[in-house]
Amino acid sequence: MTDLRIAVVGAGQMGADHINRITERIVGASVSVVVEPDAARGAAAAALAPGAVALSSFAEALERGDIDAVLVATPGQFHETVLLPALAAGLPILCEKPLTQDPVSSLRVLEAEQAGGKKLIQVGFMRRFDREYMQLRELIENGNAGALLAMHCAHRNPTTGEGYTDSMLITDSVVHEIDVVRYLTDSPIVAVEVKRPKRNSLAPSWLNDPILVLLETESGILVDVEMNVNIQFGYQVKTEAVFEKGVAEIGRTAGLTRWQDGRIFGEEHTTFKTRFADAYDAQIQRWVNATKRGEIDGPSAWDGYLVAASCEAGVKAQQTGEREEVVYVPRPAFYN
Amino acid sequence: MTDLRIAVVGAGQMGADHINRITERIVGASVSVVVEPDAARGAAAAALAPGAVALSSFAEALERGDIDAVLVATPGQFHETVLLPALAAGLPILCEKPLTQDPVSSLRVLEAEQAGGKKLIQVGFMRRFDREYMQLRELIENGNAGALLAMHCAHRNPTTGEGYTDSMLITDSVVHEIDVVRYLTDSPIVAVEVKRPKRNSLAPSWLNDPILVLLETESGILVDVEMNVNIQFGYQVKTEAVFEKGVAEIGRTAGLTRWQDGRIFGEEHTTFKTRFADAYDAQIQRWVNATKRGEIDGPSAWDGYLVAASCEAGVKAQQTGEREEVVYVPRPAFYN
Amino acid sequence: MTDLRIAVVGAGQMGADHINRITERIVGASVSVVVEPDAARGAAAAALAPGAVALSSFAEALERGDIDAVLVATPGQFHETVLLPALAAGLPILCEKPLTQDPVSSLRVLEAEQAGGKKLIQVGFMRRFDREYMQLRELIENGNAGALLAMHCAHRNPTTGEGYTDSMLITDSVVHEIDVVRYLTDSPIVAVEVKRPKRNSLAPSWLNDPILVLLETESGILVDVEMNVNIQFGYQVKTEAVFEKGVAEIGRTAGLTRWQDGRIFGEEHTTFKTRFADAYDAQIQRWVNATKRGEIDGPSAWDGYLVAASCEAGVKAQQTGEREEVVYVPRPAFYN
Amino acid sequence: MTDLRIAVVGAGQMGADHINRITERIVGASVSVVVEPDAARGAAAAALAPGAVALSSFAEALERGDIDAVLVATPGQFHETVLLPALAAGLPILCEKPLTQDPVSSLRVLEAEQAGGKKLIQVGFMRRFDREYMQLRELIENGNAGALLAMHCAHRNPTTGEGYTDSMLITDSVVHEIDVVRYLTDSPIVAVEVKRPKRNSLAPSWLNDPILVLLETESGILVDVEMNVNIQFGYQVKTEAVFEKGVAEIGRTAGLTRWQDGRIFGEEHTTFKTRFADAYDAQIQRWVNATKRGEIDGPSAWDGYLVAASCEAGVKAQQTGEREEVVYVPRPAFYN
Repeated sequence: MTDLRIAVVGAGQMGADHINRITERIVGASVSVVVEPDAARGAAAAALAPGAVALSSFAEALERGDIDAVLVATPGQFHETVLLPALAAGLPILCEKPLTQDPVSSLRVLEAEQAGGKKLIQVGFMRRFDREYMQLRELIENGNAGALLAMHCAHRNPTTGEGYTDSMLITDSVVHEIDVVRYLTDSPIVAVEVKRPKRNSLAPSWLNDPILVLLETESGILVDVEMNVNIQFGYQVKTEAVFEKGVAEIGRTAGLTRWQDGRIFGEEHTTFKTRFADAYDAQIQRWVNATKRGEIDGPSAWDGYLVAASCEAGVKAQQTGEREEVVYVPRPAFYN
Repeated sequence: MTDLRIAVVGAGQMGADHINRITERIVGASVSVVVEPDAARGAAAAALAPGAVALSSFAEALERGDIDAVLVATPGQFHETVLLPALAAGLPILCEKPLTQDPVSSLRVLEAEQAGGKKLIQVGFMRRFDREYMQLRELIENGNAGALLAMHCAHRNPTTGEGYTDSMLITDSVVHEIDVVRYLTDSPIVAVEVKRPKRNSLAPSWLNDPILVLLETESGILVDVEMNVNIQFGYQVKTEAVFEKGVAEIGRTAGLTRWQDGRIFGEEHTTFKTRFADAYDAQIQRWVNATKRGEIDGPSAWDGYLVAASCEAGVKAQQTGEREEVVYVPRPAFYN
Repeated sequence: MTDLRIAVVGAGQMGADHINRITERIVGASVSVVVEPDAARGAAAAALAPGAVALSSFAEALERGDIDAVLVATPGQFHETVLLPALAAGLPILCEKPLTQDPVSSLRVLEAEQAGGKKLIQVGFMRRFDREYMQLRELIENGNAGALLAMHCAHRNPTTGEGYTDSMLITDSVVHEIDVVRYLTDSPIVAVEVKRPKRNSLAPSWLNDPILVLLETESGILVDVEMNVNIQFGYQVKTEAVFEKGVAEIGRTAGLTRWQDGRIFGEEHTTFKTRFADAYDAQIQRWVNATKRGEIDGPSAWDGYLVAASCEAGVKAQQTGEREEVVYVPRPAFYN
Repeated sequence: MTDLRIAVVGAGQMGADHINRITERIVGASVSVVVEPDAARGAAAAALAPGAVALSSFAEALERGDIDAVLVATPGQFHETVLLPALAAGLPILCEKPLTQDPVSSLRVLEAEQAGGKKLIQVGFMRRFDREYMQLRELIENGNAGALLAMHCAHRNPTTGEGYTDSMLITDSVVHEIDVVRYLTDSPIVAVEVKRPKRNSLAPSWLNDPILVLLETESGILVDVEMNVNIQFGYQVKTEAVFEKGVAEIGRTAGLTRWQDGRIFGEEHTTFKTRFADAYDAQIQRWVNATKRGEIDGPSAWDGYLVAASCEAGVKAQQTGEREEVVYVPRPAFYN
């Protein structure tokens, strides 16, 4: 079987990682085109994939006719301008999260996809491909611990850079929990509320960090998320799920345990890249395999839209301090 | 040094446990009197302590003149009627939690204590004597992980009996977290809010169980407490403390680890009696030792009053679904 | 770059697993030929790899001229008869462990490889590609815990089948520890001793199971291996390394933790296939990548020979109950 | 009930710890006499116990007639000279380990005890009173994991002082495992062998440290003990018990877990005093309680004799490098 020829659009750090991944670890696919306006960066990224060419615009890539699928890794504000022509060309797409940055533009993307008559978009919520999240989902589905009642999530990051703003606590970080809560509970989020613990003095002055976000699902499950992006010690994503007959926890670090200097210890992750390395690989492999079968086998554009709607409510809740309901259109039959 | 002669008032399960404890594990104290209106129960309890007599009223006990201190283990609604004459008699008191069942009666007790000119009451918040809570407090105080920002608590119980009501989720159960939050943060709780996860179908029909309680301290620390009293699997009390530079957790079960039947496992507690057995012992020993020195070395009546005020706000928050502020009088200089 | 075309020789369970792996998870390689005397089994295995043909003899495969490399997955007694013609044809080889079943035949293989003037054989000791073993080796090499002094290993299997004999405790099972001890310590094993704990009454009647095997390295490190193949509960491979300043442990199960039914527990592996799934993948990917560069990047035929020599001493020690020295020829310069 | 009046003989560190313990944490006992030839040390120790007097000889103590029991905490070489007159006086005795330093003198003590017609001696093997050892023993006895087959023990100490010699690895350190193996397996040790891992360069030059000691019980259980007294990182005592259907482990540190500086960690013990603090308390309380009932409820002089016989074989094995059988007299009916 011939390799799926992928155009990677956006050659920043995430795009370059994906090019590497596809080239070195993904079976049945290769990068044929890298689209990147910064020519030097585009050339460097293309050099990672034998046979790939660097182009400055996605239109050029579409004209060549030698791409089978598109991986969108640009900054979020440019997603729509890549997604619409890719959909028009009937190309399968893996779109890094978010689908777009607000529900209105996400809806436009949904309409364009529906107009084509075939689901083409998978959104890059890679946690769904993490082994422990899959184990937890299985436990929820098989009911062995009774019904799920609540979840406690913690999402911790060592530090943030210059460009990280208050609303990105929701749109860049909690966004992962927002998707995964729906994935795990199989129920949409209907309301969001944001509470403030004491501020971390080590966070940049412009950030109200950490926050405690409360998510309610339509099915009545209450989820609290500690979002904490300047906690210094490492990168950690934990979830504790509370069932009727017990509790389950994912996210403890594994690996070598060491006794030294009066302590027993293990190493913690310091970046999402190592924590979710396997999930990123699994996500792309599953996307490649499904694409070759002409299918979608991951979070859809509809999932992406719901997340955008929840994020909108979340950012509003961050500002008002009140419980904000999530507003979203009914699910089109196309997405059932 | 002669033994401290203790009158134990109330010979229910808690009272009997304390009699046993004092007799078998506490140095420098003995039970001289058991006060219990149910004569058969009183006689059985007194039989646990060599030399103890069973009486039907506390007044009788005071008349005998052979008691040095009082341990109050009656149901909460009778605490005040024991505390006031004991204070009038100038006797040191260990009062099982709660001090009294509402802030108004607690204030009366405070006034009576102040009238005597000497602190005499310790309230039975035994968690303050648990080794892990003490370790956590030390970490908060020494600042080695930076300032404390937030805490996540879980308080889980296998099942509840007939008499357990919705408000007891706050007054009987969260009451422990309410005290321990102040102990750990050294800051009073100023507001309480109660959220509802999905209801546990295994809980009695009249209970909205579990709940998620949000506690705010004056110092800005936000604490969420999962209070969950019908979770079947066991008794568990966990706290995760979020600092500026890291996280600390207490409450994992220790002891023998076993690999069998495709699993790695350890035993969980099923009752607070085993979980906090050492803390109960340490509490009484510290009280006995301090009493002999003429001091108080544990949570005071003021701590008991603040807890009563927080519980009142908590029960109200349970009913309104709103954030309720805790109302309390200024701290009298007597309690500094 | 074109795919490495691999002939898989032997289509039993191990061979079929490798065919699957190469087809679905390994980048840059595909199975072109399956060699298997049992025609039905060969056809079934070839069907797993698009484009692969099934042949009944390795000679046929060599004649076709369309294979770039050979993966030997036959029973051990047939290894030599595949290895010698493959070497003669100058083909790179991944040979499942053992290299051959005794040191004398292994030496013949070494001579054939040397005659060709180029190292072509990698032996399938997959543990060297397990993440935790690699972490442990790094700790040994960087000296952060001081020099390595001793190791305690446990290798546990749920049950054994009809064909599993006493000597296979050494040649099939301890064989992995024998290689990994040299990998970790970078020093050959010079003596073996076998001790008998109490016999497991659940083991087949003909087996003296478990055994405790003592391995001494030339560098003075003492390793005890509990080899235990009918322990029922699961599949577990643990190593505790004792250093001058501390201890390190690998092999604890990770993943979802669950509190239920009065226990805290996690799932254990029940087979090496799940425990070492990632290591098997990594092994083949590394072999494919190195082969394409014309290199060997894993345990060599010399490693395989040393293991055969140690196993011979081990089986003898099992019979005599004495400490048996490992006899081996000096290392040819070719293998430096 | 009046307090048991105890004479503590020997006021070194161990004796002073026991005086403190009896005074502050043990119910129903007090120290009436401290016997110590060093007058200043004796006075200091006696000052720890209200009402205790310091004497320079045990004979004086016996003459006073105000002691009910004796706790022997002198160096081991002086045990016999205290034990014999204490037995002659019919006094109950808690004798710190070892009973005496060799089997011949231990036998003399056994004969003296038998001559008195009543068991009076408990030997201070405090591990039998540690909660985890008791849990392990229960698992062995109830057979829930099948029969016990083997054990792996590790006994690690940070550093040793000037006076610590090679044979003390056995007589001072492994001595604990020697007793506990019999306690757990309920079968005497019949042979000892000592193996040498690589020497720790951080150990004093005169020590061959660590050693691996193999103990065989009459019932066929094989126990390996890593004895390691200069491992720097902390004090650790672990046992892994191998059963027919599973494995059990004791000795992991519990308490507060912390995530900081890229690690997840807990504190390790650095001394036996904290690791076995509860066991020391439980040992003395059990001895006091049993003594008041006129009974022995702990390891007897016979246990002490068997340990002395095993240590003798152990020291010999350390010198010969061979398997040495343990030689001991048949058990007198008196000790059944």
